[in-house]
Amino acid sequence: MIVDGLHKDLHTLSVGIAGLGLIGGSLAQRFAKAGVRTVAWNHHPTPYADARAEGIECVDTVEELAAADLDILFLCTPLKAMDDVLARIAPVIGQRTTLSDVGSVKTQVHDAVVAAGLGKQYVGAHPMAGSEFSGFQASSADLLDGALWALTFDDTTDYFRYLLMARTITETLGNTFIGIDNATHDRAAALISHMPHVVATVLANTLTESPECNVAVALSAGSWRDMTRVALTDPDRTRAMIEENPANVAELTREVAQRLNEVADMLDDPHAHSFELADFFALADPYRRYKQAQRENAPISEGTLSVYSMSWRRELCESAERGERITHVDAIRTFSIAWREISDM
Amino acid sequence: MIVDGLHKDLHTLSVGIAGLGLIGGSLAQRFAKAGVRTVAWNHHPTPYADARAEGIECVDTVEELAAADLDILFLCTPLKAMDDVLARIAPVIGQRTTLSDVGSVKTQVHDAVVAAGLGKQYVGAHPMAGSEFSGFQASSADLLDGALWALTFDDTTDYFRYLLMARTITETLGNTFIGIDNATHDRAAALISHMPHVVATVLANTLTESPECNVAVALSAGSWRDMTRVALTDPDRTRAMIEENPANVAELTREVAQRLNEVADMLDDPHAHSFELADFFALADPYRRYKQAQRENAPISEGTLSVYSMSWRRELCESAERGERITHVDAIRTFSIAWREISDM
Repeated sequence: MIVDGLHKDLHTLSVGIAGLGLIGGSLAQRFAKAGVRTVAWNHHPTPYADARAEGIECVDTVEELAAADLDILFLCTPLKAMDDVLARIAPVIGQRTTLSDVGSVKTQVHDAVVAAGLGKQYVGAHPMAGSEFSGFQASSADLLDGALWALTFDDTTDYFRYLLMARTITETLGNTFIGIDNATHDRAAALISHMPHVVATVLANTLTESPECNVAVALSAGSWRDMTRVALTDPDRTRAMIEENPANVAELTREVAQRLNEVADMLDDPHAHSFELADFFALADPYRRYKQAQRENAPISEGTLSVYSMSWRRELCESAERGERITHVDAIRTFSIAWREISDM
Repeated sequence: MIVDGLHKDLHTLSVGIAGLGLIGGSLAQRFAKAGVRTVAWNHHPTPYADARAEGIECVDTVEELAAADLDILFLCTPLKAMDDVLARIAPVIGQRTTLSDVGSVKTQVHDAVVAAGLGKQYVGAHPMAGSEFSGFQASSADLLDGALWALTFDDTTDYFRYLLMARTITETLGNTFIGIDNATHDRAAALISHMPHVVATVLANTLTESPECNVAVALSAGSWRDMTRVALTDPDRTRAMIEENPANVAELTREVAQRLNEVADMLDDPHAHSFELADFFALADPYRRYKQAQRENAPISEGTLSVYSMSWRRELCESAERGERITHVDAIRTFSIAWREISDM
């Protein structure tokens, strides 16, 4: 065991942040605020003065950052810079440093980390936090208030490094997490974010190319505004996001297309019955009940989850699938969990 | 000419409202507030006490309402009650009464009115107003503040009845309108409302049936919430709306499905180039610029629109297509119009 994440004194934790954008900057500030030694590097030194004022040490090169003998190094750079950054840190990073990231797609990062020979040190992470703004000037420690993280793994992930990350997220950052494999993460992210961005863009494209476009815009109201909001901002960033998760997005856009064609078939069929369409509309009833329970603030239950050394990955996945969140590492294979009492999903 | 909508003194206007729901109730209150004689009938007399307190005369039967020698009778009942209501009013309604409605689908209403032998008296109307609530208790004169109406026609619509409606909307109600044919209205409504409701439901169904549904919900954020909001409320009302406009909705869901499959093809093709996907995302740029100009409150221009007696329908449609709104009837074939300076759509 190179890293003993279970017994590590978190008061002596040191972390590195490569990339002081919105998420990297917020994470660095939250660590610094928690009294953790926080070292950062950014592609441009522009945010260094502000970062230093927040108690963050700034270094000139990513090689210096990797060589700083840190417990955890978070890669918070854009995915397109990842190969370059990994090539630069691979020769200098110490084995005791656990490598992580904050990207919204995990498989590609994992593949790049493995290609750089750093797979054994890697634990993927994705905090559910963000805003419509970007850059260090928009970042803040508060951005991560109440954040849920996805803490990901593959078949070779080191369990004690995973525990170090789990404890850092829950104890140092005060957040919660779910444990899932990289592939499940990327399928879920495609479902609730990447594919819907494509759908919103398709709606906006359909309007733009309609001969009735000005009439349609005049008649449009809240439903149209909500369905197309994400198509309005930064199409280049959306495109980059889609291109990082192409297979999952393609599979889901085909599934949505098929479901839409099935509705069209019902509507076009003079022999179709109203109850078929009613079935289509009723299919999401479990989700409607889940959202209603959430709105009504249904009570949160608490319990513990114990996992086995050979099957912890599957057991964490199943816990996430049941809708549980991990709130604390209690012992080597025991976690505190919380979940909302509802969910016949 | 049975109705001289151009010279009618609007101070002597009398209107009837069949159905005191959210829209009918709001319309009745706005007319009463404007000092217009307003007579109403509702399927149940429950709202009558409140309506009378607002200065609205209430009658016991829809036959009484139709026989009240009104200038305009607005049908504000649900579409499914339309055939019954039309059968009851047809024997008693006087020829001078112009028949209108406030439904969000126009072709089916028009067909029902023609079947009842009242086609010559009919001018379709659809005010862009609403809320998430329903019923008279949720209605108010203010709901129509700033409302844009679609005032629709077909090949047989009487121009002087159309002028009466146009003047009533602009002068008495203080609203604006666009003039379009019933079929264009229903295509546009399918594009910006009915089809998007189907798409939102398809997204919610896809999540509900996903093996990753709880993980996906945990990772979901603003984009997912916005894209599925309209799938959460009242699926029965949504289904009824879709069933009123089936051909247009089917055509658009097929178009959206095809566009989604095209994106999937690009993402699945290892030889596809990034610029193809960039083209897909750039297609809606005119719409993005339009929305930006709207957000930035680009200046409103004003002018006049003159139409010919033989081609007024086409000229009103073209005006609506250019993004103009009609604010006043100036003379027999001259309208004041307003439009926002932008729109390379």
